[in-house]
Amino acid sequence: MNISVLGAGAMGAALIRSWLAAGAGVTVWNRTASRARAIEGVHVADTAAEAVAASDLVIVVLLDDASVGQALAGADLAGKDVVNLTTSTPAEARARAEWAADRGARYLDGGIMAVPPMVGVPEAGGYVFYSGPAEVFEAHRDTLAVPLGTRYAGADAGLAALYDIALLSAMTGLFAGISHAFALVRGEQVDLKQFAPLLTGWLAAMGPVTDEIAAQLVSGDYVTGVTSNLAMMVEGNATLLRTAEEQGVSPELLTPYMDLMARRLAAGHPDEGSTGVIELLDTGVAV
Amino acid sequence: MNISVLGAGAMGAALIRSWLAAGAGVTVWNRTASRARAIEGVHVADTAAEAVAASDLVIVVLLDDASVGQALAGADLAGKDVVNLTTSTPAEARARAEWAADRGARYLDGGIMAVPPMVGVPEAGGYVFYSGPAEVFEAHRDTLAVPLGTRYAGADAGLAALYDIALLSAMTGLFAGISHAFALVRGEQVDLKQFAPLLTGWLAAMGPVTDEIAAQLVSGDYVTGVTSNLAMMVEGNATLLRTAEEQGVSPELLTPYMDLMARRLAAGHPDEGSTGVIELLDTGVAV
Ligand SMILES: NC(=O)c1ccc[n+]([C@@H]2O[C@H](COP(=O)([O-])OP(=O)(O)OC[C@H]3O[C@@H](n4cnc5c(N)ncnc54)[C@H](OP(=O)(O)O)[C@@H]3O)[C@@H](O)[C@H]2O)c1
Ligand SMILES: NC(=O)c1ccc[n+]([C@@H]2O[C@H](COP(=O)([O-])OP(=O)(O)OC[C@H]3O[C@@H](n4cnc5c(N)ncnc54)[C@H](OP(=O)(O)O)[C@@H]3O)[C@@H](O)[C@H]2O)c1
Repeated sequence: MNISVLGAGAMGAALIRSWLAAGAGVTVWNRTASRARAIEGVHVADTAAEAVAASDLVIVVLLDDASVGQALAGADLAGKDVVNLTTSTPAEARARAEWAADRGARYLDGGIMAVPPMVGVPEAGGYVFYSGPAEVFEAHRDTLAVPLGTRYAGADAGLAALYDIALLSAMTGLFAGISHAFALVRGEQVDLKQFAPLLTGWLAAMGPVTDEIAAQLVSGDYVTGVTSNLAMMVEGNATLLRTAEEQGVSPELLTPYMDLMARRLAAGHPDEGSTGVIELLDTGVAV
Repeated sequence: MNISVLGAGAMGAALIRSWLAAGAGVTVWNRTASRARAIEGVHVADTAAEAVAASDLVIVVLLDDASVGQALAGADLAGKDVVNLTTSTPAEARARAEWAADRGARYLDGGIMAVPPMVGVPEAGGYVFYSGPAEVFEAHRDTLAVPLGTRYAGADAGLAALYDIALLSAMTGLFAGISHAFALVRGEQVDLKQFAPLLTGWLAAMGPVTDEIAAQLVSGDYVTGVTSNLAMMVEGNATLLRTAEEQGVSPELLTPYMDLMARRLAAGHPDEGSTGVIELLDTGVAV
């Protein structure tokens, strides 16, 4: 295994150490050279172009898409396989894939679902979404699997970023809900450390709802099999809001979703579950 | 086992059938008598007062707290043990406990964490939070455990409702996040039924964050051990918002939480995780 890595930030450094531990020869370039030099056992390149020249497989882990364009501006990518793990949007990933093709490189995009301490620790369950040509993914699958698990999302280069951002977005909602729950109970005679696993267990039990939502979106039938319908949920929301007020907790993290449920109900869908709300998020202007 | 149940709605009927199956003698009152009569094997009472008189243990499963007051207005509760499973706010539950004490009854409040199909199906994992005097809970624990699991939340009658509403509030955030995630991917070449378990798995992996938040709230230290800090998360939020715009998805379910993160960061807490956001939800006016 011989690879070049551009970027020795927190994530880049963790990946590099994992490949080194597996016996790979690793050439590293980092804008601030001292960060590359701090990693024992790597070949430090003076320029990004030099690092790219050193290996057929080039891993990029920079801050954002703009920094990728800047760092690689002067490099000769012809004949290289570029795997870009820098977080980006789907459109940025697709544009970067074209940019790489124009320069004669094969391109995979990646979205990292892990924090640095999870790198090289299989039990931690971290993984990376990859998208781009299947044959490029297959060619490097074993090398890519060293630091973190791999999930191939499809040939469209934008899919890894799309999956990545979709999961992070869902997590944002989860954290908002958890924050509200803790805000409600924290002033009370509640042992927060005993409350936490109850909360986790309840949320985990709700997990499979995603299968139901997926099936409903595919079938277009949002009613069949629904046990908690919109009419009941909207009534229940009033109790949630009254409780927030009693406890002196702002409802701002809950109201946007509740408002959408109320709108969907008012549009004449009392027997649906919550899936119809997803349609209301459509702004009609994808760019 | 001899019990009286007030309320034969969807939830009441499911509970009643479960107790009947366990061999209990069940007296039922329901405002609309036909719903009570439709359940084979029960004694139907003509009035709530008559149902209360028939058993020492009285289970109440009505629509809301107001309907409990109306239904029990003319009943003699002296010497009875009343277990009220009607969803209510913590303050309503506390007031109802005093109201019951004034009438000479012992009182437990309950919050049902299940839908009717989960009743009597232990594998389904549904349960009820109970709060009120521990000795009353212990006295009826076995009977209460027949339809659904039991969790004792504490002596303060309001705690069952508080736990119930806190978990439902967290679920609201979870569902909001899941809705946004599906909105992002549904117009794309994504197999939604394959995407769903990825989403579920990711959210489940985030579950233990509640332990971390609880520990931080208890210690008051929101910095130690944080791997994803606010500064990073706020930068990441920009990518989430850009992606929503690309995909034509309204960001309204994510922005309130992102705004709070940005406020907490601006207040000088770049190294914290997200726990500090919880403080910003405090309206300062608990009622
Ligand atoms: N850390 C995580 O938990 C995590 C999790 C999932 C995904 N990611 C993603 O992984 C990528 C790297 O993150 P990180 O945690 O390693 O970030 P980091 O520690 O802040 O490192 C940023 C890296 O980008 C370089 N860089 C920034 N601007 C540049 C420019 N204009 N030209 C060239 N290089 C530039 C930095 O070089 P200098 O050293 O010279 O500043 C450094 O190597 C990001 O896209 C991030 O979203 C991170
Ligand atoms: N279903 C669930 O998934 C679920 C889950 C957790 C908790 N819960 C809670 O369980 C309780 C009962 O829910 P449910 O699903 O059984 O509701 P439901 O099917 O709508 O039944 C409501 C019950 O309340 C009675 N009622 C309504 N207003 C009344 C009044 N003013 N006076 C006397 N009785 C009145 C109804 O009598 P009539 O038959 O005469 O209308 C019926 O017995 C609620 O507090 C609910 O929040 C339900």
